[in-house]
Amino acid sequence: MSSNCSVNRPLPSRAVPRWDAEHDVVIVGFGASGACAAIEAVAAGADTLVVERASGYGGSSALSGGEIYLGGNGGTPAQRAAGFSDETADLYRYLMLAGGRDADEAKVRLYAEHSLAHHDWLVAQGLQYKNTFLSERMVEPETDDCLIWSGSEEAWPFSAAAKPCPRGHTPQWPGWGGGQMLMSVLAARVEASGVAVRYDTRAQALIVDEAGAVCGVVLRSCGADTYVRARRGVILCAGGFAMNREMVRRHAPMLLRSADPIGNPGDDGTGILLGQSVGAAAIHMDQGFVSLPFYAPESLIKGIFVNERGQRFINEDGYHGRTGWHALQQAGERIFLLVDNAAYAPPPEFTRIGIAAAGESWEEVEQELGMPEGSLSATVQSYNRHAAQGSDPAFHKAAKWLKPLDEPPFVALDCRIDYAFYPHFTLGGLDTLPSGQVVNEMREPVPGLFAAGRTACGLPRWGAGYSSGLSLADATFFGRQAGRHAASNALNLPSNTD
Amino acid sequence: MSSNCSVNRPLPSRAVPRWDAEHDVVIVGFGASGACAAIEAVAAGADTLVVERASGYGGSSALSGGEIYLGGNGGTPAQRAAGFSDETADLYRYLMLAGGRDADEAKVRLYAEHSLAHHDWLVAQGLQYKNTFLSERMVEPETDDCLIWSGSEEAWPFSAAAKPCPRGHTPQWPGWGGGQMLMSVLAARVEASGVAVRYDTRAQALIVDEAGAVCGVVLRSCGADTYVRARRGVILCAGGFAMNREMVRRHAPMLLRSADPIGNPGDDGTGILLGQSVGAAAIHMDQGFVSLPFYAPESLIKGIFVNERGQRFINEDGYHGRTGWHALQQAGERIFLLVDNAAYAPPPEFTRIGIAAAGESWEEVEQELGMPEGSLSATVQSYNRHAAQGSDPAFHKAAKWLKPLDEPPFVALDCRIDYAFYPHFTLGGLDTLPSGQVVNEMREPVPGLFAAGRTACGLPRWGAGYSSGLSLADATFFGRQAGRHAASNALNLPSNTD
Repeated sequence: MSSNCSVNRPLPSRAVPRWDAEHDVVIVGFGASGACAAIEAVAAGADTLVVERASGYGGSSALSGGEIYLGGNGGTPAQRAAGFSDETADLYRYLMLAGGRDADEAKVRLYAEHSLAHHDWLVAQGLQYKNTFLSERMVEPETDDCLIWSGSEEAWPFSAAAKPCPRGHTPQWPGWGGGQMLMSVLAARVEASGVAVRYDTRAQALIVDEAGAVCGVVLRSCGADTYVRARRGVILCAGGFAMNREMVRRHAPMLLRSADPIGNPGDDGTGILLGQSVGAAAIHMDQGFVSLPFYAPESLIKGIFVNERGQRFINEDGYHGRTGWHALQQAGERIFLLVDNAAYAPPPEFTRIGIAAAGESWEEVEQELGMPEGSLSATVQSYNRHAAQGSDPAFHKAAKWLKPLDEPPFVALDCRIDYAFYPHFTLGGLDTLPSGQVVNEMREPVPGLFAAGRTACGLPRWGAGYSSGLSLADATFFGRQAGRHAASNALNLPSNTD
Repeated sequence: MSSNCSVNRPLPSRAVPRWDAEHDVVIVGFGASGACAAIEAVAAGADTLVVERASGYGGSSALSGGEIYLGGNGGTPAQRAAGFSDETADLYRYLMLAGGRDADEAKVRLYAEHSLAHHDWLVAQGLQYKNTFLSERMVEPETDDCLIWSGSEEAWPFSAAAKPCPRGHTPQWPGWGGGQMLMSVLAARVEASGVAVRYDTRAQALIVDEAGAVCGVVLRSCGADTYVRARRGVILCAGGFAMNREMVRRHAPMLLRSADPIGNPGDDGTGILLGQSVGAAAIHMDQGFVSLPFYAPESLIKGIFVNERGQRFINEDGYHGRTGWHALQQAGERIFLLVDNAAYAPPPEFTRIGIAAAGESWEEVEQELGMPEGSLSATVQSYNRHAAQGSDPAFHKAAKWLKPLDEPPFVALDCRIDYAFYPHFTLGGLDTLPSGQVVNEMREPVPGLFAAGRTACGLPRWGAGYSSGLSLADATFFGRQAGRHAASNALNLPSNTD
C-alpha cells in the first residue's frame, strides 16, 4: 500500500548544502489561509515568501462558495440591516456546541470576540458584501446577495443553546462560486504587499536546527531542490487530506462511504505530513464535513429522513452537513427522504437524488421499498400524530417545518449513500494554539512551525457541528493569527540558529 | 491544558553523553506484548532488555481475563474437543469484518494462518488450557473452563460472512482474571531466558542516529537518566492511552462519555508519543473498545435495546462490546434494555444497570419513561410481531433469541451512559507492518522502531468489531513478530551507527 503523497523527513540545517533564499516567514500554500497569513506577516514587517504547488493561487478556497461564518458583537452590517443583533455570547455558545466534545474553547472565544473586526478587515482588503439577506434556506445564494442561514442555528439543540442568527456571509458575486472572488481579492492584496510568490513549487521537507526548531523548507520546482531559510517561521496552509484516499482510509474510514471528496488535488495531506515529520500532533483525524445538499427547495425540509430500517435519525431542519454526517453514521446504504405531495419538489439534479418509491399510502411505500411491515409506516404515523400538534418530541424539528405527511401520493426520495451526492472534506489536522503555533501531542510548541486552514484542526472539528462558512472563517482568521505571530516569532532569529 | 504524560523529543546519538548499557533489543513495557517480544528476541539470539515503569510485570494484560482469540487451521484442541472444526478462511473472514473498513489484510491473513501455531506456542510456554467448552453466553468463565463464545460470531452480519465458531480461549484459572496467570507464565519464561529486566524505569525519549534510525532509549529511574544503546531495535509495548483523558479528548472524544477507562495507570499514551516523536504514524485514534457487559444472564439477550427515542439500534445477540460501542453512538444519555417477565433476570451488580420503569403494558412503560407516545411501544409492537414469526427483519437477531416480549410485567432496564458501567480502552495506535516495524504516514519504515500491543494499531481497530481476546491475540502474536524481526534487524548494527 502506498500513499499518493509523500514528504521527506526533516533535514537538519547542518546538512543544508546552501541557502538559496532567506525570508522571515515562509508560507506553504496559497489558499485563503495562506493569503491571510501572508498579508498579516507583511503588515507586521516580515519579509515573506508564499509557495504554491499549483500554477496559480486559490486552492480549495477558490473552489468554494466563499461564504464566511461571521457575527457577534451586535452584528455585522448585513446582520443589522436584516434586523438581527448577534450577541458575542450567542456566537460563542453556538461555536462551542458546533465543535463537539473537544471544542477548542480558546479559539472559539477569540473568534467570537473578534469576528466582527475580522469582517471589517476582510472588507478593508476589498471584499464586497451586498449586505442583503435571503431568508429562504439554501446552500448558497443563486444571486449576489449576502447573508443566509448557513448552519443549524434555528435547529435543535443549537437553537436551545444560543439565540439563532444567520451568519453565512457570501461575497457580492453572481451565483455560486464566490470563493474565486474571495481569493482574487486576497491574492491582489498579497501581490500588492510585495510578498514573494513561487508557483509550481512544492514543499518537500522542513529544515530543523540543532535545537529542533523549524528554520526553513526544502522546495522543489522544475526538477531542482531549493533550500530556503525561514528566519521567523514556516506556516503550513496546504489544505486537508480528502484527496488522499489511503490517508482517509487509515484515519477517517467513514468518509470512504462517499465517492465525492471536494477540494483541489493538492488536498493530499502534505501540510499535515510535514507537520508530523517534526513531531506535531494531528487531532480529530476521523472527522469530516459530509453533506447531502437536499435543499433547496426548502419545502423538502418538511419531509423526514429515514434509514433502511425506516427509523428517523435527525431533525431535518439542521444544516445539510449535519444531516449528511448523520446519514453516514447509519448502517446500510439506503437513506430515504419521505415527502408527501405537499412537500414534494424535485431536489437539485446534482444531488443525484431520485425517486425510490411512491404510493397512495405509506404502507404501500414501505412495501415497495421492501422494508419490514410496520417499520417506515409506524415512523410516519408517529411523526404525523405529533406534527399535527405542532411538536416533534423525538427529534425536535422546529414547528415551522412540521406538517403531517398525509397528502398522497407519498414519495420516498432515494438518498443512497453509494449513489447520491455526499460531498466531503476532512476536518482533522495539526493541533495548534490560537496563535497558529503548532504543538505536539503534549501541547508543547514545535518551535518555528505554524499552521492554519484545513492543515490545522480549528473551529470546525466535528462533522455534525459543521456550518457553511466555518472552514473559511477559521482559515482566514487563524491564517491571519499565524501570519502575525510568525512574523513576531523570535525563536528563529539568525543568532539562534546555526 | 496539559497532558498527564510526557516524553522528551528524540535525542541525537551524537548528543548522548555516555552509553550506560548496550543491548541488541530494548523493549519498553512488560505486559503480554513485551513479554512475547522478549521471549522471541532472545530465542533469535538477541541480547535483550525489558524496561517497565511499574514495579512489576503485567501491565493491563495481567488485569484482563486472559482470554485469547484463537482458531482456524481446523481448530484448536479446545475447539475440536467441543466438536468445532474452525477453518482458517472463516477466521480470516471474521477478522476482516471485525477490522472495519480499514481492516489490516496483511495482519489478518498472517494471524489467521498462524493462529493454531500460536496457540501451540503459548501452550509450549506453559500456558494451561482445560480445553473444555461452555456454551452459554458469558463475559468470562466463572470457572477454570476454557472455550467460550467471545465475539459476535453467531450474530449478524458476522454469521453471514463466516461460519460461526467459538474462539475465546481462557487459561485454566478459577474464575475471572486469568490474565494474571497468562502473565505469570510469560514472565517466568522471560526470566528463565536471561532477558535483563529493569522495573521502576521509564522510557523518556528515543535516541536516533545520523540517518534517523532509532538506536537507543533514554531511561529514567531513581531520578537519574541512563542512555541505553539498542543495536538492533527498540520495541514499544507500552499500552494504549485510555488513562490519558486529554489525549482521549483530542482523538477519541466519544470515549469521554464513559467514566470507566480500564487498564493500568501506565496506559497514558507514552508508547504512542515516543513513536510519534520520531515521525511514526498513529492511526484509528478515534476508536475504542466500549462495552456494556449486560449478559450473563443470557436470557437478557432476548430483550431489546432502545435509545431515548425508543428506537432499536443493534441486534442484541452480538458481543457486548459491539452493543456498548453502538450505545455510545446514540444521541442522549438514556439507553434502555426492554425485557418482559420471561426474559428478566437481574444483570450483574457491577454493571450498575437498575430498573428505570416497569408496567403492565409497554404503553405504560413508555409513559413512565416520558417517551413520546407511540415511540417505544411501536418499536416493541413491531419487534413482537416479527419475533412471533421467528424473524427480525430490521436487525437480524438470530432466531434462538427471538421471543415476543409479551409476558407482563414489562421492564425497562436503565443503561444510562452516564451511570451504567461502560468500560473502555483505546484501539488506535502506531501503524505497523505485520513484522511489527513501525511506519510513518507514508508507510515507510521508521528504522529501528517496532511496536506491539495497544501501542500499535493491530487486528482490533474498530469498536463495533471487537471481540474478547482479540487484543491479547494481537498483543501476543504481533509481540512475537516484533521480537523476532527486531532481533534480526540489521539496520542498527554498530557499524551503521555513529
